[in-house]
Amino acid sequence: MKKSIERFNEIIREKKLIDVAISALHWDLETQTPKKGQELLSDVVGYLSSKSYGVITSDEMVLLIEELKKKREELTEIEDKSLEEVEREVDKLIKIPVLEYREYNELTAKAQGVWAEAREKNDFGLFSEFLEKIVGFQRRFIKYRGYEGHPYNTILDDYEPGMTVEKLDDFFGYLRKELVPFIKKIKEDGKSVDGAFLKMDYPENKQMEFSKFIAEYIGFDFERGVISESAHPFTLNYDKNDVRITTRYIRNMLSSSVFGTIHEGGHAIYEQGIGDDIAGGILGEGTSMGIHESQSRFYENVLGRSRSFWEPIYGELQDKFEALRDVNIDEFYRGINKSESSLIRVEADELTYSLHIMVRYEIEKALIGGDIEVRELPRIWNEKMKEYLGIEPSNDREGVLQDVHWSAGLMGYFPSYALGNVYASQIHAAMKKDIDVDEALQNRELYRIKEWLNQKIHRFGKLRKPEELLKEIAGEEINAKYFVEYLKEKYGNIYGV
Amino acid sequence: MKKSIERFNEIIREKKLIDVAISALHWDLETQTPKKGQELLSDVVGYLSSKSYGVITSDEMVLLIEELKKKREELTEIEDKSLEEVEREVDKLIKIPVLEYREYNELTAKAQGVWAEAREKNDFGLFSEFLEKIVGFQRRFIKYRGYEGHPYNTILDDYEPGMTVEKLDDFFGYLRKELVPFIKKIKEDGKSVDGAFLKMDYPENKQMEFSKFIAEYIGFDFERGVISESAHPFTLNYDKNDVRITTRYIRNMLSSSVFGTIHEGGHAIYEQGIGDDIAGGILGEGTSMGIHESQSRFYENVLGRSRSFWEPIYGELQDKFEALRDVNIDEFYRGINKSESSLIRVEADELTYSLHIMVRYEIEKALIGGDIEVRELPRIWNEKMKEYLGIEPSNDREGVLQDVHWSAGLMGYFPSYALGNVYASQIHAAMKKDIDVDEALQNRELYRIKEWLNQKIHRFGKLRKPEELLKEIAGEEINAKYFVEYLKEKYGNIYGV
Repeated sequence: MKKSIERFNEIIREKKLIDVAISALHWDLETQTPKKGQELLSDVVGYLSSKSYGVITSDEMVLLIEELKKKREELTEIEDKSLEEVEREVDKLIKIPVLEYREYNELTAKAQGVWAEAREKNDFGLFSEFLEKIVGFQRRFIKYRGYEGHPYNTILDDYEPGMTVEKLDDFFGYLRKELVPFIKKIKEDGKSVDGAFLKMDYPENKQMEFSKFIAEYIGFDFERGVISESAHPFTLNYDKNDVRITTRYIRNMLSSSVFGTIHEGGHAIYEQGIGDDIAGGILGEGTSMGIHESQSRFYENVLGRSRSFWEPIYGELQDKFEALRDVNIDEFYRGINKSESSLIRVEADELTYSLHIMVRYEIEKALIGGDIEVRELPRIWNEKMKEYLGIEPSNDREGVLQDVHWSAGLMGYFPSYALGNVYASQIHAAMKKDIDVDEALQNRELYRIKEWLNQKIHRFGKLRKPEELLKEIAGEEINAKYFVEYLKEKYGNIYGV
Repeated sequence: MKKSIERFNEIIREKKLIDVAISALHWDLETQTPKKGQELLSDVVGYLSSKSYGVITSDEMVLLIEELKKKREELTEIEDKSLEEVEREVDKLIKIPVLEYREYNELTAKAQGVWAEAREKNDFGLFSEFLEKIVGFQRRFIKYRGYEGHPYNTILDDYEPGMTVEKLDDFFGYLRKELVPFIKKIKEDGKSVDGAFLKMDYPENKQMEFSKFIAEYIGFDFERGVISESAHPFTLNYDKNDVRITTRYIRNMLSSSVFGTIHEGGHAIYEQGIGDDIAGGILGEGTSMGIHESQSRFYENVLGRSRSFWEPIYGELQDKFEALRDVNIDEFYRGINKSESSLIRVEADELTYSLHIMVRYEIEKALIGGDIEVRELPRIWNEKMKEYLGIEPSNDREGVLQDVHWSAGLMGYFPSYALGNVYASQIHAAMKKDIDVDEALQNRELYRIKEWLNQKIHRFGKLRKPEELLKEIAGEEINAKYFVEYLKEKYGNIYGV
């Protein structure tokens, strides 16, 4: 029995080492690999992915799982949950033929470079044949793996255990019902808000310095992390001692780097806060993408776009950028919260953000369901943008090509962002019972907030499922009411409606 | 037969993919891994090294080698030489126990971070226990592998096939006999040369811009390469389509980044010039470290420190840096060729450089031979510097801790630098028969020089041994006479002796 557990842990460790190598190659591919070097590194990713697959789905591992399942009562809590998690993963993988899995991983490693080029050149055609193949793989994989209800449910569950199309249709229905009329009211009756100063001249090197400052300020630990640049900001965790984030510096768009950094910083703080007892093991990372996004969006929006957050540090920002010299903190606060229908998701305000997610959710659902095809995407994207946000992109770069996710095979991920917003509001409500959040921000005591999150969420990693965490913290299941109330109060004040 | 060759190539490809992953991790470790993340990535390097070892020394591979050796006449030239190279490598590895090999690779991956810290803190004690272990491994590995004559011969041969202590003792003896009196004469009778302007204020970001410019100018292809920063400049080749170089930017030391970039650029141009017929295979890289250094030092010194090189571009350099405003090209040329006894090898001038190598050669020979111990190194280093160069470092940072090599286990490598100088002069003499090198430089036609080197050296990779290349190019074996003549003419002119 002891032998089996040891061997089980050894295999997990071996998989971890291979997966870290894969992560390091992805990091390289997305931040610095030269154009003509992408193919080789993509091949390496494909090769190592098949090795990682082979290690975790080996006959030995399958037998070990069966053996350990019979003796559950002898396992510690961590061993027991690790077993559950491994079984979940093996079950998912073992149904997919290894050669297809390898081909798929090589494809997505390459597709990210192609997507970046297509986006750069505003050429959907360049990317579409890759996307068709990716969608083809996804549809096949779901068939291999099986599904209940809608086929999209299978991949939804990968990012948010227990989530289904049925629940999401309700969820988005509620948000639409509450938010669309409110947004309309603001448009018609709200005061005007000026955000033009955020699009003045902000030299890249100064943005870079400020990004480092703000990451450290919110609690990102540079002894255990790196910040770099990429076309689309992301976070990559090797383990709690090495968590990488990227941002992007656009000269006439300060918000992009500042809020991008705070957002990815929130993800990174989650991963850096994993408990030592589970670090490096299969439970040693964020429990779901929805909870992950709750952390990033809590830092980005609930904290980062609050007045209290900027009070102690706005002077430092102002000193750095000429363009802010005559903008006072109230104008700044209103500017960073200006709400308007816009084209780019990552730069959307909190109020309209969920509508961007709705566009993606409906497209993914239909793609996976086989109701639409890849070549129709630019048209459908634009139609949906028109329908929900009232505006239409004039090119695919600002439309269907804007996000990296599909090129990386991350279908089923987008709903996490909307769930994250909703979780974040519930967590915020609970936190306020223990901490005066505004006071902590005003006193530069962000460590108090981080420690609360470490204690209640981060340290558990995958030891607790999303619903368990939420029950413990908020005393109830997911409930979008808090989010809607938060938005109505905040934007009601800003726009005077 | 065809099956065997296919399988042989598959195994080589598999090893290549693992080795590229290892290279990518080394790149990350040396350019950006956060402090506390180094341990995990080092473990991954150790794990993958043992996999690479396992793949190439597998029973299957050993049998394939035996089988293919019996049918040599059926192999193409590339297959035949690949077989020879694989056999050489397998022979070397198979005698080392796999666990020790893995432990050694984990150790050197970690040791590089420790060395960087020790150097930063000027604390040899921090690094010495790692170095002791590395030397212990090296001594044991040589015992396992066997040796003829001096034990150091075994590792010399790894970097320069056929090189021995006996030959090197002669070689360095000749250089010492010719150069020491010449250097003395310059010191005593030479005109004075001013290099102080090179130590004025050169902002790092502008050095960075110029490094990119100069790398491209000499022929480095950025579509197939990256330039980054590290404590010690180095070149890392994944394959011909992805070759990475680093440099370092020191505010009051222009030469460090400029000539560091040209030096590493020379290495990179070699690797980017590998022929398509051998690219990605086991023959698809530089044939020996001596030939590699001949390329880097040819670019750095023979070209990069010539007057003709700077004539067309000195104005651009001058425009970039205030500190050069009143320095004319003749003063610049003399300044970058100022010869003086100095402490740091990578910043030494061409004339005294070989003496730096001699210090390292003698220390390595004695360390490997068991004649001295690691703890004695700071003292011995300083004594030898005093003896050969007449100066003594006041701290280990500028002494025994200055080079990365030992922390990476690269013992036996240093002599390559001196051999490289000598090869470079022979190659230069041959090139001048085909091309007017000065004219090419003056006309910004560096592609003509690159193409000549591509044609005569680069494209062959490991298909030709160093002595074969040299015979074909220069019509004779290694001959230090050209190097000594080159130095005497160049420095005789500059110093008027």
